[in-house]
Amino acid sequence: MQLSSNFITPLLTDFYQLTMAYAYWKGRHHEDRAVFDLIFRKNPFGGEFSLFTGLEDVLRFIEAYCISDEQLGYIRHTLPGCEAGFFDWLKGVNCRDVMVHAIPDGTIVMPRVPLLRVEGPLGITQLLETTLLNLVNFACLIATNAARFRIAAGDNKILLEFGLRRSQGPDGGMSASKYSYIGGFDGTSNVQAGSIFAIPIRGTHAHSFVQSFSGLGDLNNSGLVGPNGQSHDFVEMVLAARQKLEAGRTNEGELAAFIGYAQSFPAGFLALVDTYDTIKSGVPNFLCVATALKQIGYEPIGIRLDSGDLAFLSKAARRLFRHAEQSMGLDFSGCQIVASNDINESVLVSLNQQGHEIDMFGIGTHLVTCQAQPAFGGVYKLVELNGHPRIKLSQDISKVTIPGKKEAYRLVGADGFPLADLMIRVGEDKPVVGKKVFCRHPFDERKRVNVIPTEVIPLHRCVWDGKINYRSPNAQAIRTYVHDQITHFRKDHLRLLNPTPYKVSVSNTLFNYMHDLWTRESPIDELS
Amino acid sequence: MQLSSNFITPLLTDFYQLTMAYAYWKGRHHEDRAVFDLIFRKNPFGGEFSLFTGLEDVLRFIEAYCISDEQLGYIRHTLPGCEAGFFDWLKGVNCRDVMVHAIPDGTIVMPRVPLLRVEGPLGITQLLETTLLNLVNFACLIATNAARFRIAAGDNKILLEFGLRRSQGPDGGMSASKYSYIGGFDGTSNVQAGSIFAIPIRGTHAHSFVQSFSGLGDLNNSGLVGPNGQSHDFVEMVLAARQKLEAGRTNEGELAAFIGYAQSFPAGFLALVDTYDTIKSGVPNFLCVATALKQIGYEPIGIRLDSGDLAFLSKAARRLFRHAEQSMGLDFSGCQIVASNDINESVLVSLNQQGHEIDMFGIGTHLVTCQAQPAFGGVYKLVELNGHPRIKLSQDISKVTIPGKKEAYRLVGADGFPLADLMIRVGEDKPVVGKKVFCRHPFDERKRVNVIPTEVIPLHRCVWDGKINYRSPNAQAIRTYVHDQITHFRKDHLRLLNPTPYKVSVSNTLFNYMHDLWTRESPIDELS
Repeated sequence: MQLSSNFITPLLTDFYQLTMAYAYWKGRHHEDRAVFDLIFRKNPFGGEFSLFTGLEDVLRFIEAYCISDEQLGYIRHTLPGCEAGFFDWLKGVNCRDVMVHAIPDGTIVMPRVPLLRVEGPLGITQLLETTLLNLVNFACLIATNAARFRIAAGDNKILLEFGLRRSQGPDGGMSASKYSYIGGFDGTSNVQAGSIFAIPIRGTHAHSFVQSFSGLGDLNNSGLVGPNGQSHDFVEMVLAARQKLEAGRTNEGELAAFIGYAQSFPAGFLALVDTYDTIKSGVPNFLCVATALKQIGYEPIGIRLDSGDLAFLSKAARRLFRHAEQSMGLDFSGCQIVASNDINESVLVSLNQQGHEIDMFGIGTHLVTCQAQPAFGGVYKLVELNGHPRIKLSQDISKVTIPGKKEAYRLVGADGFPLADLMIRVGEDKPVVGKKVFCRHPFDERKRVNVIPTEVIPLHRCVWDGKINYRSPNAQAIRTYVHDQITHFRKDHLRLLNPTPYKVSVSNTLFNYMHDLWTRESPIDELS
Repeated sequence: MQLSSNFITPLLTDFYQLTMAYAYWKGRHHEDRAVFDLIFRKNPFGGEFSLFTGLEDVLRFIEAYCISDEQLGYIRHTLPGCEAGFFDWLKGVNCRDVMVHAIPDGTIVMPRVPLLRVEGPLGITQLLETTLLNLVNFACLIATNAARFRIAAGDNKILLEFGLRRSQGPDGGMSASKYSYIGGFDGTSNVQAGSIFAIPIRGTHAHSFVQSFSGLGDLNNSGLVGPNGQSHDFVEMVLAARQKLEAGRTNEGELAAFIGYAQSFPAGFLALVDTYDTIKSGVPNFLCVATALKQIGYEPIGIRLDSGDLAFLSKAARRLFRHAEQSMGLDFSGCQIVASNDINESVLVSLNQQGHEIDMFGIGTHLVTCQAQPAFGGVYKLVELNGHPRIKLSQDISKVTIPGKKEAYRLVGADGFPLADLMIRVGEDKPVVGKKVFCRHPFDERKRVNVIPTEVIPLHRCVWDGKINYRSPNAQAIRTYVHDQITHFRKDHLRLLNPTPYKVSVSNTLFNYMHDLWTRESPIDELS
């Protein structure tokens, strides 16, 4: 059972939704049949793909939609001149007459293809807008950001989300942990996200732990029991290794801290090595303790670098590991190097170019705040009212909405990769496998293409028709689905820099429908 | 009564806090007496000031700290090899033996001066780290960002936070509304923030409302009752004004929407004018409706611009207002112009340079995501253990911590403006009004200054000593306190671009204490 934020209530909305609802009610339009599309116009981070997620919270919100008496009291207080009948209506508002079509949670999505299509009485569908956007926008942003980090790091690296302390409040942190896992991270440091979403949690110790030890005198006992039950004088073994490794000048407080940590987690020893000096103190101290652990029969995990030149330090550390292998006759090749200092997408790309020895990345601020672009531009637009299309015109062509009730299909080519997404009017003939489909660019009349799909994936399904019609997969299943799609998408669409645009097209019928309306609604300018 | 996020629990922490707590416990160090400072190292947004806030959530979290059986079960599951005694200890952990000193909520704060000083048993004080940082970092970031927007806009403009749909999840939105209000905004669109924090809420209608009307036929009645109780044929009056204003070519659906909205909110008529064409349709339609409202005895509020060149459009709209004044013999000078499209700090500065006619700004994405710098770098550092100082060394001087238990004073000069913040060791003589105080730069031994303060403001107070010792002011009171301080701070420190640094200094005693330790702990490099 997943816990949602207690802030997700009908009041988590913009005030103008309430004033509009009143104006609809007062003009007797609140029961008009509306269709809203939740779309976005541009992929974030300069990319050519996004991930859609957040559907589970959306459905729960819709299912639970009900304004409490206390909430109603507050609304009444904010709308002093409004008629009492409106509040009676508001008290009874729920989503039983609403129908929602959505793209499955975790799907790769493209601009202009509706993520959600919300149909129902104008009053309630308008009231849902802000909350739906709030729940979808950040979820999509984080998941897409995480997927890009995953693409930058490659599949064979472990990625951990370490951003809780820099995230945007408690729920910002919870959302960041959940959706970065869905986007392709392997785990989080956030214990609560682990507990609620069953995400693997990871972590070892901080600088303060190392600082809390001044020297070996701070150790309250020197023993360690091996995996076979035998007791050892662990401190003595570490000191013997220290001598053999010629590491006598390392910081003794740090050495004590590592010993203390290894005594607590002999099978999970991962040491933060940059408190004093990574190469002169941290790594040698790690190797002293790791040697003793190995001699007893435990496998040390590795080290964490949290400052400095990560490419250089990781290579230098690996050299020290190999050097110790020769001195001690032990195999440290399985020891992992974790890096965690201010890593963003470009740092990952640059590290790959330089070459490095890092196995695992802990990523915080840049992941959870999406520093490169901290908002996903989802919008919620009226596209039909009482069966009549609605269009939002704009001098900026990217802001023109595609009117009417639509559904979309992903057309897969002969090589198994998706070729294009096709939007059609609901009721039109659907594209069929093996049959030529005529696809048009939504705005540029010259751009047309015929596609013979080997597979047609319907993107929309009805997820709510008065009750939840969609079984939300857990975070693990969504993550696997994301990974499968990324594997089966053309690499050039997913490329981080200057990717190839993926085609988003409309049927001929939808093209004509839209352009007729567009021409009709656009005023002819008068020049004088 | 203010509601907090249900996600604020002891599990809202990094996993390594738990592993460290175990290692402390196992090494019998968990009762060692620790002192942690929560500090930040650099003001955000290139500025020379920050605002401290978030204290109320911090204190509630500390007061409520208790690990439930269910949470304990999860922790036990994540730490399979740990001794049972640890979990017994963890079950009983609370903050009764913890003492917290803090700077009052809403204070202008400077890098390196502790925002919080947390003292107590090492185990529990370590466990608090991540949650405290999460609660403080985003709060300070948003409040500081909002204060900068306020400085950019000037005191005579109204600033509204409109960011809920782009905020980082539900709580990201709630925090953004609360802390931007504290930083100097006048209100929010977020209804729930209004209801919980008693922040004024504002809003009118969206494009979808305008789009939902096709023409005057969509109006279900044409009347409007005036403030004196008299009925009018409102539509007829609007159409008469339309003729007189020669506005016959405006979009009729838009005109109908404005009439419908005015019928619902005759005393709160503010029209979004850019759905079709701001100057050719939106503003003339507004003026038709505003004219009829005025004729009946209502005062229209104004218009909202949500796209295009805001400086140009606001001036053009104001010209149309004046033109209508002449045609209709009515006074529209009180009508306000609200602007709300993608506004950030630089846009405000640029608008001021160009000249504009905007009275009110609705600011969303850039405010709530703090796009210019989406994280506040608060850190939590061990500075003393069992009475012995602890220092974190770093090649990067800005990352060196100032050891020991400290308190800080703000020294005010003869002109009433703060001159410097002075940190001293706890137990040292405090600075006294009218007496010369010797202040040193914490790192640069050459930089010293004598100050004769006309006022000495102690920055730290004990806010928790086993119980809450601090009465958290409400958001309104904190906002007023912020505003008062900003008024009494030298303008050149608050300047947005290239501000003058404000002095953060240490006493001679603290300087020597710190530098002795620093020299002692730094290894002498060997060159060979």
